[in-house]
Amino acid sequence: MGCMPVAFHTTRRVEFADTDMAGIVHFANFFRYMEAAEVDFLHARGLSVKLEWDGQMLGFPRVAASCDYLRPVTFEDVLDVVVSVRQVGRKSVTYAFEFSKEGEPVARGQITTVCCRVGPGRQIQAIEIPPGIRDRLQGTADA
Amino acid sequence: MGCMPVAFHTTRRVEFADTDMAGIVHFANFFRYMEAAEVDFLHARGLSVKLEWDGQMLGFPRVAASCDYLRPVTFEDVLDVVVSVRQVGRKSVTYAFEFSKEGEPVARGQITTVCCRVGPGRQIQAIEIPPGIRDRLQGTADA
Amino acid sequence: MGCMPVAFHTTRRVEFADTDMAGIVHFANFFRYMEAAEVDFLHARGLSVKLEWDGQMLGFPRVAASCDYLRPVTFEDVLDVVVSVRQVGRKSVTYAFEFSKEGEPVARGQITTVCCRVGPGRQIQAIEIPPGIRDRLQGTADA
Amino acid sequence: MGCMPVAFHTTRRVEFADTDMAGIVHFANFFRYMEAAEVDFLHARGLSVKLEWDGQMLGFPRVAASCDYLRPVTFEDVLDVVVSVRQVGRKSVTYAFEFSKEGEPVARGQITTVCCRVGPGRQIQAIEIPPGIRDRLQGTADA
Repeated sequence: MGCMPVAFHTTRRVEFADTDMAGIVHFANFFRYMEAAEVDFLHARGLSVKLEWDGQMLGFPRVAASCDYLRPVTFEDVLDVVVSVRQVGRKSVTYAFEFSKEGEPVARGQITTVCCRVGPGRQIQAIEIPPGIRDRLQGTADA
Repeated sequence: MGCMPVAFHTTRRVEFADTDMAGIVHFANFFRYMEAAEVDFLHARGLSVKLEWDGQMLGFPRVAASCDYLRPVTFEDVLDVVVSVRQVGRKSVTYAFEFSKEGEPVARGQITTVCCRVGPGRQIQAIEIPPGIRDRLQGTADA
Repeated sequence: MGCMPVAFHTTRRVEFADTDMAGIVHFANFFRYMEAAEVDFLHARGLSVKLEWDGQMLGFPRVAASCDYLRPVTFEDVLDVVVSVRQVGRKSVTYAFEFSKEGEPVARGQITTVCCRVGPGRQIQAIEIPPGIRDRLQGTADA
Repeated sequence: MGCMPVAFHTTRRVEFADTDMAGIVHFANFFRYMEAAEVDFLHARGLSVKLEWDGQMLGFPRVAASCDYLRPVTFEDVLDVVVSVRQVGRKSVTYAFEFSKEGEPVARGQITTVCCRVGPGRQIQAIEIPPGIRDRLQGTADA
């Protein structure tokens, strides 16, 4: 896997629509937050969750996702999100996400995606991660 | 427009994730409720919001949507939804939606969609509503 | 834990708003599907995710959630959902969810909730699961 | 109503989860975008959609919302959002929202909210907009 990249930081402000009747962010929304943070990370490396690469369209569908909820998060909170690449496999990438509020951890999650070629009818096929993308994910190449 | 069809009835149960920190259904979710009721209505007439018709793929993107909120709606409420076709234009269809709870109206909405041909790259083009679809929307033909 | 209850079955129809630009259900929505199936299960046993019990208000906030995605799920699919109680701890309940389409598994998830007393200002405190609720969760008491 | 305030500008980046299988932002999400822009606007004036004011808790539930969709909006688009206060009534506020992309309008919406006192059990009661809030909404007082 080579040397691990320095973790990437982004933030997320909680919107009113993200909350539920318990007065806190609905748990499913942390998965949207993770995906948006992943996109921020990928953008910082000249990538995205959908991109053209060497003449073909690539996507990264999710095969696994999980989250542990440590503390309630409420409307107008601004969360710090740390994204790190936990593992780059032959075809898959696993990200870890740490959410914190004023220095206190509030949630920890993980998402595993698979690199896929997207055909014209949107059918997908898992492929090996192209070396140029792998280098960017591992932080061994500049965007 | 021909004779108006009898209104179509469906129901919607409010889920926990639909609520917000005010303890009621978040207002944006009524637009999801309307669209799902529209699909129920279309299914009852052998149609959908995306369908193959005479060898081409059709879709009905929305060009306008509105809702008036009359009473708060909460978790576990089961809403009655009445869908009616307010107007069938040359290319567009306007639906009206009446939401009620135990006989009391809680919200009223409207959505206008345009009949479009969807190309292979998902580019869309507004077209005249095919006569067979128009008949079904107006209730003058069986599904 | 006593004998395990027979698994509970429910269904979920995929709505247009649940899909994303990849043409499939957005992965975060499976967590909404799980929660709704959990509520269906709880209703069948005379419970809910928010309920009054022995004069106090109880809630079941989530402390962990995960999902594995096996096959793409698309608009208008009707999923079979099997809910089972994997573990009832002193204060927590873990549910497993199996989603399938025409007999083929499409996703598997898990949610762990904690039984909490909800105070008047919505502050929460984890408590031992009341025996009467425990019996219903384990299927050793009728609703 | 006094003189109209200068319009307020904010931006919104489209996330993957905001899109649907038609490849564009799902129409219901524009209502979340509007609410978030309203909150940005209110923050800039020292207000919010839920705030303590003169010792009481105030909220602004929505009584009407509408949107016209002019052009498709897709993943990774960054929208300019112009928020303006269209009308301040005795108890209600109506906002207008203009969404544009690279100078081209893509959607126009409107939301009407009512100023409410929120009681301890979250029951709400419409009240006259306090003069201090009215001044800030109309831009005749600094935050």
